[in-house]
Amino acid sequence: MAKSDIEIAREASMKPITEIGTKIDIPTDALLQFGPSKAKVSFDFLEGLESKPDGKLILVTAITPTPAGEGKTTTTVGLGDGLNAIGKKAMICLREPSLGPCFGVKGGAAGGGYAQVVPMEDINLHFTGDFHAITSAHNLLSALIDNHIYWGNSLGFDERRVAWRRVMDMNDRALRDTVVSLGGVANGFPRQTGFDITVASEVMAIFCLANGLKDLERRLGAIVVGYTRDREPIYARDLKAEGPMTVLLKDALMPNLVQTLENNPAFIHGGPFANIAHGCNTVSATKAALKLVDYTVTEAGFGADLGAEKFFDIKCRKAGLSPDAAVIVATIRALKMHGGVAKDKLGEENVEAVKKGLENLGRHIRNVGQFGVPAVVAINRFTLDTDAELAAVQEYVTQFGVEAIECNHWAEGSKGTEALATKVVALCENGGAQFRTLYEDDMGLFQKINTICRNIYGAEEAIADKKVRDQLAQWEEAGYGHLPVCMAKTQYSFSTDPNLKGAPTNHVVPVREVRLSAGAEFIVAICGEVMTMPGLPRTPAANSIHLDDAGLVQGLF
Amino acid sequence: MAKSDIEIAREASMKPITEIGTKIDIPTDALLQFGPSKAKVSFDFLEGLESKPDGKLILVTAITPTPAGEGKTTTTVGLGDGLNAIGKKAMICLREPSLGPCFGVKGGAAGGGYAQVVPMEDINLHFTGDFHAITSAHNLLSALIDNHIYWGNSLGFDERRVAWRRVMDMNDRALRDTVVSLGGVANGFPRQTGFDITVASEVMAIFCLANGLKDLERRLGAIVVGYTRDREPIYARDLKAEGPMTVLLKDALMPNLVQTLENNPAFIHGGPFANIAHGCNTVSATKAALKLVDYTVTEAGFGADLGAEKFFDIKCRKAGLSPDAAVIVATIRALKMHGGVAKDKLGEENVEAVKKGLENLGRHIRNVGQFGVPAVVAINRFTLDTDAELAAVQEYVTQFGVEAIECNHWAEGSKGTEALATKVVALCENGGAQFRTLYEDDMGLFQKINTICRNIYGAEEAIADKKVRDQLAQWEEAGYGHLPVCMAKTQYSFSTDPNLKGAPTNHVVPVREVRLSAGAEFIVAICGEVMTMPGLPRTPAANSIHLDDAGLVQGLF
Repeated sequence: MAKSDIEIAREASMKPITEIGTKIDIPTDALLQFGPSKAKVSFDFLEGLESKPDGKLILVTAITPTPAGEGKTTTTVGLGDGLNAIGKKAMICLREPSLGPCFGVKGGAAGGGYAQVVPMEDINLHFTGDFHAITSAHNLLSALIDNHIYWGNSLGFDERRVAWRRVMDMNDRALRDTVVSLGGVANGFPRQTGFDITVASEVMAIFCLANGLKDLERRLGAIVVGYTRDREPIYARDLKAEGPMTVLLKDALMPNLVQTLENNPAFIHGGPFANIAHGCNTVSATKAALKLVDYTVTEAGFGADLGAEKFFDIKCRKAGLSPDAAVIVATIRALKMHGGVAKDKLGEENVEAVKKGLENLGRHIRNVGQFGVPAVVAINRFTLDTDAELAAVQEYVTQFGVEAIECNHWAEGSKGTEALATKVVALCENGGAQFRTLYEDDMGLFQKINTICRNIYGAEEAIADKKVRDQLAQWEEAGYGHLPVCMAKTQYSFSTDPNLKGAPTNHVVPVREVRLSAGAEFIVAICGEVMTMPGLPRTPAANSIHLDDAGLVQGLF
Repeated sequence: MAKSDIEIAREASMKPITEIGTKIDIPTDALLQFGPSKAKVSFDFLEGLESKPDGKLILVTAITPTPAGEGKTTTTVGLGDGLNAIGKKAMICLREPSLGPCFGVKGGAAGGGYAQVVPMEDINLHFTGDFHAITSAHNLLSALIDNHIYWGNSLGFDERRVAWRRVMDMNDRALRDTVVSLGGVANGFPRQTGFDITVASEVMAIFCLANGLKDLERRLGAIVVGYTRDREPIYARDLKAEGPMTVLLKDALMPNLVQTLENNPAFIHGGPFANIAHGCNTVSATKAALKLVDYTVTEAGFGADLGAEKFFDIKCRKAGLSPDAAVIVATIRALKMHGGVAKDKLGEENVEAVKKGLENLGRHIRNVGQFGVPAVVAINRFTLDTDAELAAVQEYVTQFGVEAIECNHWAEGSKGTEALATKVVALCENGGAQFRTLYEDDMGLFQKINTICRNIYGAEEAIADKKVRDQLAQWEEAGYGHLPVCMAKTQYSFSTDPNLKGAPTNHVVPVREVRLSAGAEFIVAICGEVMTMPGLPRTPAANSIHLDDAGLVQGLF
């Protein structure tokens, strides 16, 4: 029987984190250790590296996700290990998993098979406390708002227009829609509000985009927390909230160093939603990695239409990053689903379905090309994939001038990604990258949305009610017109219909609602339902999670 | 100008926590470090000490608190340092401060002056994440309850009788009384509930009383989370919640090692409310300390009527601890307030007022005597106290056969407590302690309450409605009759009227409500208002908390 991820992880011989640090020239006194195998890297040390030139930056993204799975995180881990295996100084940057979903649907977020980051249980539980710090900072702001209203409301909040909810790192549908401050005079003014999961907090997005503590504080202060009856915005800084929030986040902002199963360094830091936020690990971690190693491999949430677009147009734009190569992960199984095969038929060879599904991959390849970043396709191989199916992919991608390379990191670790690593190095060293964002800062907000819909989603156009367009115009007038746009759309299709697989055309993208994330510095365009507080399933994973007699965690994976 | 606590703390030269560990024979590999100056001590190591004999246990308690302050924590720190200074192997055990109040009224909870524990900011902020873990475990149970009801409610919860709220480590009055699950079918069944601050969670009380992980899990499973329409209890174990909750708490349960300003070891672990819970640090930390050193100094919340009584009758009873000595802290200023002096007149000598206030101290001395524990009074000296005032105290206490010893730890550190330390050692070594609890397990629940009210509070009797007495009778029938009682009463008086200073007599104690903490294993008797979710003041401390240009936290103290 194949070993489970957690069994493989437990067999790993982890090295002391100080040794992993030494490997990338981090002195031990620059590591704030959290037990023997986790550490934060001190800002003082990282600031001293500022004059060093940046290494190469590689983005791992994927085709449109299906229930068949793609393995973006495992490929990121595998590629990092592969680069090390071929003698390069490399590390990976991943997002931190959220605690809440661990107790819902079974599944971790630390890779899998022989391409994992460890210590797996810690990473999936409290880790170094970053998300708890973000939860505290967010909810302190919430408490300060209601407290301000309670003590006289001198800023003039319209209680119906408080724009700041509360957060919890838990899947708890009961908290989506609540009334607070019931129970009489001593408890304040009753009003309707609710909770989001912590990863959906604007504080999380800010945390991930902040360029140091000063920038973090400035962004926190810029959060719009509500409006007066005259619809004038009220900012977090009006409540003097940015100071204590920064104090709560000061340690969290240091990147977290862990290791892969092959004892290569990995930063795991920050984890914003990939719909209402940009879905990438922190700028802190990525920038630190670029100074520490020659090759930094990072990933972005969902498929390339959402993840890569936001990575390029939001994170790279704002942080001044210039990616050198992109890896687009695909699986034969997922391509078959895009080609119309049902989930229970994925085990059968079906070259025609693969060929039909490839139009999805093709559009993602073209899209990445629009950003001027050279790409390679990584085929994350499963046992039942046939050579004919693989060949169909490899032949198809030649029309785009790219290669599709088979990867077997899940079963083999770095041995399974050496070819991919070699190709990635070649792409980086060729200097072919000419990174550009999809749109300029000074383009109108709705035009930015439209540009993404047409050029990335293959849509006819974006449409929106007058109310939405008026709101965008108002923000432009208020000085937010230069912000990039963060699209919140289903990850399961290029369109807004999750059932439209492949590469749909002739569709329109209705923008239902727009939101201002003034601290994160983007405008969120919501196209369809966005769930910001998940629920638990009928039989939650929590039911089987426990410590066994040996003190080991069971049931987490 | 006198230095502030934080200035003194920053001038301290902290030693690496590994060095502090070595001082009490903890090998470095038994320490899970959290940065250079905090560490958790591994269970594996502690379990290996079980055959070692216990050291001496000293409780620091106090007279009835007044706005003048007593300095129980500083005295605990000072006595620990004093014991070390006279050549004894000693350490202290303190409670962890709660994050929420840090942003409310200015003030930390890590001692003061030259009697502090460090790193002070860390201890007052996220520390090692214990409270976050407790918050998560508590709220996971909440989510599991509403999720169970959502998916069909096969256990038959009466939605009006869900007995488990949610918690947040924040002062947020808006969350005291809420309605959740609004917004339609997908969000569950609307019901009224609310949030308490994390320190008020039964999980916190359980965490502090648990004797290892197995006992923790058993207790968590025994929490009564609600009742059916037939009023049958539903337990956390019916939701299989104790397993994942234990997983969330497994690291937190290891005691946290830090140091005093004089580089002596200190455990800071757990921090339950001292009204609806028992107000002591964890059994884990106290038991570990008893194995590691010859003298363990610990403290209990509020005055001796609440703190010491619960320490003896709940913690010591349940954990099998046998204290060897007690220190009752008093200040001249507080005694004057008990003698009727207003706060703004405390600077003037007033021997008569001190003498009048001493009846408060006297009753606490007699009370401690009832538990068979030899006591000494520590007079925590302030600059304006006169020798005549001091002499009045010293003379008064001789009638009880105890000494009152002047302490100057705030200004002088261990130099100021050497006399106290010497006396404490003498009390311990005399073997005079014959510890006994105030009542036996098999006494009736109401009779237990009555015994505490009469013997400790000096009351005529406890009174309660038929409803309350019926509830107690029901619990006795259901098998909870053997539990100890946890009194929730104002800390400002022996009576239930906070304005009655000194040692009131002829008062009765009305028991307004009783609650079952089946996991913590005590019955809470509520006498008067109990606030389980504080609010922020008009000008919260948060307003001035920020990082300065040097990256130092300002405004926290």
